[in-house]
Amino acid sequence: MDRIAIYDVETTGLDPKRDHIVQLSAVKLGKKNMMKIIDKFDAYVIPAGEWNMSPAAQEVTGLSKEFILAHGRPTKEVLMEFNDWIADSDLGGYNSNRFDIKFLYNESQACGLGFDMKGRKFYDVLAMECRIHPRNLGAIYKNYTGKTMEDSGLDAHNSLSDTTATAVVMAHQMMQENLNWEDIDTWQENQIISPEGSIRNTSMEGHEPRLVMAFGKWKDQDIYEMAQSPEGISYLSWAKENVFSIYTLQVIAEYFKMRKYGRSSDHTINK
Amino acid sequence: MDRIAIYDVETTGLDPKRDHIVQLSAVKLGKKNMMKIIDKFDAYVIPAGEWNMSPAAQEVTGLSKEFILAHGRPTKEVLMEFNDWIADSDLGGYNSNRFDIKFLYNESQACGLGFDMKGRKFYDVLAMECRIHPRNLGAIYKNYTGKTMEDSGLDAHNSLSDTTATAVVMAHQMMQENLNWEDIDTWQENQIISPEGSIRNTSMEGHEPRLVMAFGKWKDQDIYEMAQSPEGISYLSWAKENVFSIYTLQVIAEYFKMRKYGRSSDHTINK
Repeated sequence: MDRIAIYDVETTGLDPKRDHIVQLSAVKLGKKNMMKIIDKFDAYVIPAGEWNMSPAAQEVTGLSKEFILAHGRPTKEVLMEFNDWIADSDLGGYNSNRFDIKFLYNESQACGLGFDMKGRKFYDVLAMECRIHPRNLGAIYKNYTGKTMEDSGLDAHNSLSDTTATAVVMAHQMMQENLNWEDIDTWQENQIISPEGSIRNTSMEGHEPRLVMAFGKWKDQDIYEMAQSPEGISYLSWAKENVFSIYTLQVIAEYFKMRKYGRSSDHTINK
Repeated sequence: MDRIAIYDVETTGLDPKRDHIVQLSAVKLGKKNMMKIIDKFDAYVIPAGEWNMSPAAQEVTGLSKEFILAHGRPTKEVLMEFNDWIADSDLGGYNSNRFDIKFLYNESQACGLGFDMKGRKFYDVLAMECRIHPRNLGAIYKNYTGKTMEDSGLDAHNSLSDTTATAVVMAHQMMQENLNWEDIDTWQENQIISPEGSIRNTSMEGHEPRLVMAFGKWKDQDIYEMAQSPEGISYLSWAKENVFSIYTLQVIAEYFKMRKYGRSSDHTINK
């Protein structure tokens, strides 16, 4: 492969088994000079069969079903073109080895095109960033102190040692960020979505929260979307009596307000 | 609250709805001098009722059921002591607002103790690290180039702009880390666990992989542990015929080898 194609898909939702590609974009680079873009690919894609934009996907991408229908071409046509276009290319992207590749692969299979991964390299800038700057406790400790936990007489994976290392990291973070303890969040303000673990946030870092059930028959369903159907409401009522803690109920109330009236005005839930 | 208690739990597994605390450790700090530990708490905990260490938890913590039974005390006794001990303390930990808090809360509820979150602050060094060094594309782009995407004429959330920014980040990462394209991973070597999305890796960054089903009635079950029962084997056989891609089958074969014979010797899957 002489080239690298950096690609990105926009989709109807986050589930690679149910959702579809609605936009496929890419830039092509040579391996010698990666700063120079030598070609571009950009197409809106109309999925085959029944499909809809999930409200969340429409909000993030700004793409509506009407827009896609007006500007897109059928999946198979676009993918055939794209397959030819990347015939000389390894692939790269942002979070692409965990997200985009699944859509590219499944959509190719679904329209009978196949997608050859053999002999291809896959560069993911997010995965690379995680490797360059890991966030396990030992790595964070070393970033702040310049020493390994072992050098400091701390035994990683011993839980008392871990709490000591955590305390040191906390002190450094607060110093570096100039924080006072008054600035630190209470449970309502931070990432404790649900202390009993009944709901969780599936949105990526930096995006608006998407709270879903974490267990049972409605697992992975957005709780706000659940509340749009009688069955969902009935299940949520049951969970309210039997599962949700008072803390979770407050988080849910706030999430519903945000979904109903738009972007949360203050800094609560998942900042 | 005058103090901060940095705590850490070791558990029988990762599921806060099914698993239990087997060790609870903490150090206590004053808010003035966070570098000085003024008290420690450390106890092994024997869960009530039926329980077992999951193989994965035993591997990570080094704690066996026999050891816990020999050195532990009942959950309720330890939690009552801990609740008293933290009466003057806000709480902190590593990933504690997403993991440890759920176990602390659920175990407290289960033995009728309650756990008061109101008026308490919760500091999570991992959450803080994510806030200090975010990893969305715009933030990574700015780290490497010193400019925002907007300053560079790139429109975040437009997918063609995103691929351009991704290409720039890739070029910088490779330069900084002194990588050649030959060093970049093929699909077998990197985080593409399953291009069709049928299995996923639930282990934390830097830990040995734990591959689980990503869909269907066995969702979230470890595929190696599935293969220990006839029902699991029968489902995996069905999935082999109908769901798993040839790429996924290779990843599974390698994972089974690693689980059976210990730590993977080479650098494949989830490094």
